[in-house]
Amino acid sequence: MSTDPTPDLDLAARLFEALHEKTFDGIGVTRDAYGPGEQAAHDLIRATAEGLRLETDTDPAGNLYVTLPGRDRQAKRIVLGSHLDSVPQGGDYDGAAGVLAGLAAIAGMQNARFAPQRDVTVIAIRAEEAGAWFPISYPGSNAALGRLPPTALGVRRLDTGRTLEDHMRALSLDPAAISTATPRLTPDNTAAYLELHIEQGPVLDAEQIPIGIVTGIPGSRRLRAARVLGEYNHSGATPRRYRRDAAIALAELAHRLDDHWAALEAQGHNLVCTFCVLATTAEAGFTKIPGEARFQLDIRSVDPATLEAMFTEVHRLISLIEPRRGVRFDLGEETGSTASPMDPSIQAGLARAAEALSIPYRRMPSGGGHDAAAFAQAGIPAGMLFVRNQNGSHNPNEAMRMEDFAAGCAVMTRWAAEIAA
Amino acid sequence: MSTDPTPDLDLAARLFEALHEKTFDGIGVTRDAYGPGEQAAHDLIRATAEGLRLETDTDPAGNLYVTLPGRDRQAKRIVLGSHLDSVPQGGDYDGAAGVLAGLAAIAGMQNARFAPQRDVTVIAIRAEEAGAWFPISYPGSNAALGRLPPTALGVRRLDTGRTLEDHMRALSLDPAAISTATPRLTPDNTAAYLELHIEQGPVLDAEQIPIGIVTGIPGSRRLRAARVLGEYNHSGATPRRYRRDAAIALAELAHRLDDHWAALEAQGHNLVCTFCVLATTAEAGFTKIPGEARFQLDIRSVDPATLEAMFTEVHRLISLIEPRRGVRFDLGEETGSTASPMDPSIQAGLARAAEALSIPYRRMPSGGGHDAAAFAQAGIPAGMLFVRNQNGSHNPNEAMRMEDFAAGCAVMTRWAAEIAA
Repeated sequence: MSTDPTPDLDLAARLFEALHEKTFDGIGVTRDAYGPGEQAAHDLIRATAEGLRLETDTDPAGNLYVTLPGRDRQAKRIVLGSHLDSVPQGGDYDGAAGVLAGLAAIAGMQNARFAPQRDVTVIAIRAEEAGAWFPISYPGSNAALGRLPPTALGVRRLDTGRTLEDHMRALSLDPAAISTATPRLTPDNTAAYLELHIEQGPVLDAEQIPIGIVTGIPGSRRLRAARVLGEYNHSGATPRRYRRDAAIALAELAHRLDDHWAALEAQGHNLVCTFCVLATTAEAGFTKIPGEARFQLDIRSVDPATLEAMFTEVHRLISLIEPRRGVRFDLGEETGSTASPMDPSIQAGLARAAEALSIPYRRMPSGGGHDAAAFAQAGIPAGMLFVRNQNGSHNPNEAMRMEDFAAGCAVMTRWAAEIAA
Repeated sequence: MSTDPTPDLDLAARLFEALHEKTFDGIGVTRDAYGPGEQAAHDLIRATAEGLRLETDTDPAGNLYVTLPGRDRQAKRIVLGSHLDSVPQGGDYDGAAGVLAGLAAIAGMQNARFAPQRDVTVIAIRAEEAGAWFPISYPGSNAALGRLPPTALGVRRLDTGRTLEDHMRALSLDPAAISTATPRLTPDNTAAYLELHIEQGPVLDAEQIPIGIVTGIPGSRRLRAARVLGEYNHSGATPRRYRRDAAIALAELAHRLDDHWAALEAQGHNLVCTFCVLATTAEAGFTKIPGEARFQLDIRSVDPATLEAMFTEVHRLISLIEPRRGVRFDLGEETGSTASPMDPSIQAGLARAAEALSIPYRRMPSGGGHDAAAFAQAGIPAGMLFVRNQNGSHNPNEAMRMEDFAAGCAVMTRWAAEIAA
């Protein structure tokens, strides 16, 4: 029995190719959550695992579990994984890389006849891309963790307009059992969750470091349907003092909030602030003063006080802008998530593994949200490994060098073997 | 023979109603330039004029002339009028009010058996709404004035994509003759042009004054298809220093240029500056940093130096923003028009008429462009009367009180009778 398993990178490479072939839509890959695209990915992973004679199982919410059994089936298991859905016309690596890394790890253990003391389970999670499909946080992992809010089944997919429950039933899943069955993963049966993911950001690439050990996943405060209401008027005939220009009011808010971000960052705060949409509406046109504008605002920080400081500034700026520009802001519903620090002992274990393998790494906060946040919120020690990638994510040009993926897999496999030994 | 003709307001009221009925589209009135809507209006005015036994004529570009003959047919004529097209889903008064005021004036003269010394001609001009149909300035009046640029016939209507020439031919007009025939209106045969128009702005209404005597029509410098190009990236995973956010770059330009406007205005400059469109594109979405934004910019002033100062500031701001935010501005084609002061002696004559009639007025610059600008550019003394209106213009809710219209018609008629006597 080897004590030094190496990940099965050939398996991962074949699966990256097969996933691309099955879900390429002509522009990018589209693996729609609880739809045909995601299901095709789940079917492929399940069939592959069965071919490897690994244990497979699905929970009522459709999350897939692939397990290399440990010698003590009652010991707390180790879970490796990520999600298999993608944004529409997305790339090959966001989500999928974490599932394939987990499979490469346990297939590598199996190849090396490494018999873990405890189960090592790869989870393929459903519906992580909340911005693209179901606008709720982590329905798949939260269902596995017994933490799906009762209202979640009624949330409608943004494109189809059908509820999460409808989508689950169409796949012969069992939404009613999600709240009644015993949660699949709890702090009592799970020792740790580790998720490998492409960085999605430019930091590792710019700094020429193959992997990142994530210190935490920021919380967010978000406005998805905010509006500024002014009055349409003739652009030539309406002097400045008579205007109620929604677009310039929004431009002022955006520019001044961006300045506030820069000031907070200079003071050492860690955050991002993005007007994802900032737009006059279809009624706008030449010779008209815009009477309406819409925006989406996404603010994220690992520190709740920083989020609060930004939203205080949003409200302060609005109270200045509204009377002066004769407009009204309607912020709509605010959504958000709580920050999730990654487990310090997992971070330390990952660092030890990287150092033993002479793989350069840096510690860094996550930019985006990930299923690991749901695990941390559920009280399960969680960690994340970032892999350097190019061209961002959520687009068809997502790129990741296989040598960087190999570095991430090596650290994951070494860490998991150490914990599971 | 009366020397004090009064305008035929009943005629005007009937024509406002009939125009509405013929061109109401269910939401507003749509009189598309060189299309069925505008043509229906021309047909109605022509038939009405024929019923009144006034002379009617059409030039090769389809402008309609309705003439009360003067005793000396060789004397320079007086021209009253405006345009009959509207924006899509526009209101009842923009343009039409000036044509009907002219008709009310000459019908009033005819009713009073007032025989003018010189011809008094009402012109119904084609295609003034450049922002809505053909994106060129005043094709109708410029054709009448012999000043239509040779390239204008090839300009395409924004909605149909068909050329101005095609649209003219479909109405059995004679586009080829526009450049070969003698211009209909020249400084040699036209003593003055007077256009009554709703103000389109809030000034007269706010100041409770029924009419305005226009001092000049501002020139403009315009960007209709400007873009900011950055890079789409994940909104959570891209730190501030790695961003190339097109939307925030545009917000900064808009906000700072608006500040510059306020500063120039405080120094006594007269101008307006409008980002008519300011928008991320369809590719924008939640969790994405906007990689592209588009804008339309409309700057107007009676003073070319003020326009120049604003565009200098546009370029200065862009040169600051581009390197700092990693974006590139593509301003596209710049269009514009030259400022046109209104004739001082016409302004003085209108003031005398208003004072004689005890009608309150104020002098004011025009906010929008009008056909009167084309006449002034052609060297024909031009004047404009504004009528107080509510709810702006270019929308179905355009409103004008008939008593204010009557005040404008009374001043126009008295002025024309004085000049024509």
